[in-house]
Amino acid sequence: MIVVLAGGIGAARFLAGLVRVVPQNQITIIGNVGDDVEIHGLHISPDLDIVLYTLARVVNPNKGWGFRGDTFECQNMLGQYGRETWFNLGDRDLATHIYRTEQLRKGRLLSEVTQNLARHFGLRVRLLPATDDPFQTYVATNNGRMHFEEYMVKRRTRPKVHRVTFEGARSATPAENVIESIRGAKGVIISPSNPIVSIGAILGVSGIRSALQETEAKIVGISPILAGKTVKGPADKLMKGLGLKSSALGVAEYYRDFLDTLIIDRVDKKLGPEIERLGIKPVVTNTLMRKMTDKIRLAKIAISELQ
Amino acid sequence: MIVVLAGGIGAARFLAGLVRVVPQNQITIIGNVGDDVEIHGLHISPDLDIVLYTLARVVNPNKGWGFRGDTFECQNMLGQYGRETWFNLGDRDLATHIYRTEQLRKGRLLSEVTQNLARHFGLRVRLLPATDDPFQTYVATNNGRMHFEEYMVKRRTRPKVHRVTFEGARSATPAENVIESIRGAKGVIISPSNPIVSIGAILGVSGIRSALQETEAKIVGISPILAGKTVKGPADKLMKGLGLKSSALGVAEYYRDFLDTLIIDRVDKKLGPEIERLGIKPVVTNTLMRKMTDKIRLAKIAISELQ
Repeated sequence: MIVVLAGGIGAARFLAGLVRVVPQNQITIIGNVGDDVEIHGLHISPDLDIVLYTLARVVNPNKGWGFRGDTFECQNMLGQYGRETWFNLGDRDLATHIYRTEQLRKGRLLSEVTQNLARHFGLRVRLLPATDDPFQTYVATNNGRMHFEEYMVKRRTRPKVHRVTFEGARSATPAENVIESIRGAKGVIISPSNPIVSIGAILGVSGIRSALQETEAKIVGISPILAGKTVKGPADKLMKGLGLKSSALGVAEYYRDFLDTLIIDRVDKKLGPEIERLGIKPVVTNTLMRKMTDKIRLAKIAISELQ
Repeated sequence: MIVVLAGGIGAARFLAGLVRVVPQNQITIIGNVGDDVEIHGLHISPDLDIVLYTLARVVNPNKGWGFRGDTFECQNMLGQYGRETWFNLGDRDLATHIYRTEQLRKGRLLSEVTQNLARHFGLRVRLLPATDDPFQTYVATNNGRMHFEEYMVKRRTRPKVHRVTFEGARSATPAENVIESIRGAKGVIISPSNPIVSIGAILGVSGIRSALQETEAKIVGISPILAGKTVKGPADKLMKGLGLKSSALGVAEYYRDFLDTLIIDRVDKKLGPEIERLGIKPVVTNTLMRKMTDKIRLAKIAISELQ
């Protein structure tokens, strides 16, 4: 089994290539639930859905989230009822949230519901939420404390973040098979996702970081930061806000207690020696995933580093 | 205040005429909640919504329920997730159910949520659910016991009903202002709705029937049964199944303890003397509501009988 720690869009793009290289039933994905948020009383798991929709090839390719060609009739009507509509919910997408919420209220675990959704989409990967327990990412900003999705979507990452906290981290335990899959993995890949709020939120579930430190499997990461900037999302801003280096080197430092190899972009080639000094092998390549061929090539490089 | 006891489509059509004759802010509607049902974890109030959508002039005129021109993207997707889709939920319609469910889960009363919806639609009628408590109509049939909506929508009224029960009737109390509005009414109108499961479910909330018996206001009903048949819905079948007369006379007998006047159709003219023997004044007219002029004429007759 190859285990992949995954956030949202960056991870999903990488996984789209990986499933062309490795059979789906040999892939376990540990997904971030820190972004999970209740909107209109519905439980929304943005990152799990991005991974599901992308692998199911129903995702909106321009946005990287939601269904391709979805409509927004329900959301428009909710707006007419005076509800906030900053979190975009397409009509088809809503079916996922309605289904998930109903199942969770019936007492099902998020991991069961997620696996059912994966099955309905015909996927054979194992997609595990990092935890089945309540676990939400909050940011302390110069505009006050808010849920990460509010910072990310409603405030468009404008407030300055000086602290990231994980609500529920003290009591949350890893979902079934999360620790076991890391321990027994043939290799572990850390997706090119936000180190703080995507991968960081997974690592924030007690037991996961130590399982990574202890596993005998090789662990390969892909830097989501190129020349100090993220391709998508606020990882660079967040890392700076927390006093970390917003660079592939900052990523290496953040993962240094468990990482064997970090794949970095050509533009960061000069950071190689410094990463090596951390005891991490730098692999320099083109990490931008524009086309499927880019994704497949990157997946192949990651896999080859797991040997 | 004119108080109207209302079920679904028949009541809504009548009310569409009434609001052309009486200012909206002089109308209190007491709506049936026995049809309320949880679908996909959402609280659906079919009859309240039919009244709302009709008065807001957004209703699908062919079906008599749901939004005109609504789409069904979410429901189709729920079907792909293996969910039952016998209860049609349009995308815009879903906004009502999502909003209502969220508000109820936050601890709001159904009556508050209903009044908020009415306000969002720009209505000035007061629409009160008969009760804010759990109250659901079940039918015992030759295919087993089931929720009324399952019998009505999923089974298309095919099973033979031999008993109607109201779950929650023992503990349900009338919503705020229901009893007061009947006691202080200038007149009460019983819509041409199903006497058993629409009006009957309202009467099944303790205190409402006795308030009707005790009020000094005139009470005028409109028979939903013409020549032994209903215009819409299973009232005739249900009345027969329960051993009642499926006729305007059966309706008069069912309401005899509180009704002053029963408006019946020309086709039932011959039942007039028998209705009169029950102490109820029969008024014979054309009760079919095809066009707005029919609805207005019927509303005017009902109002004139309240004097």
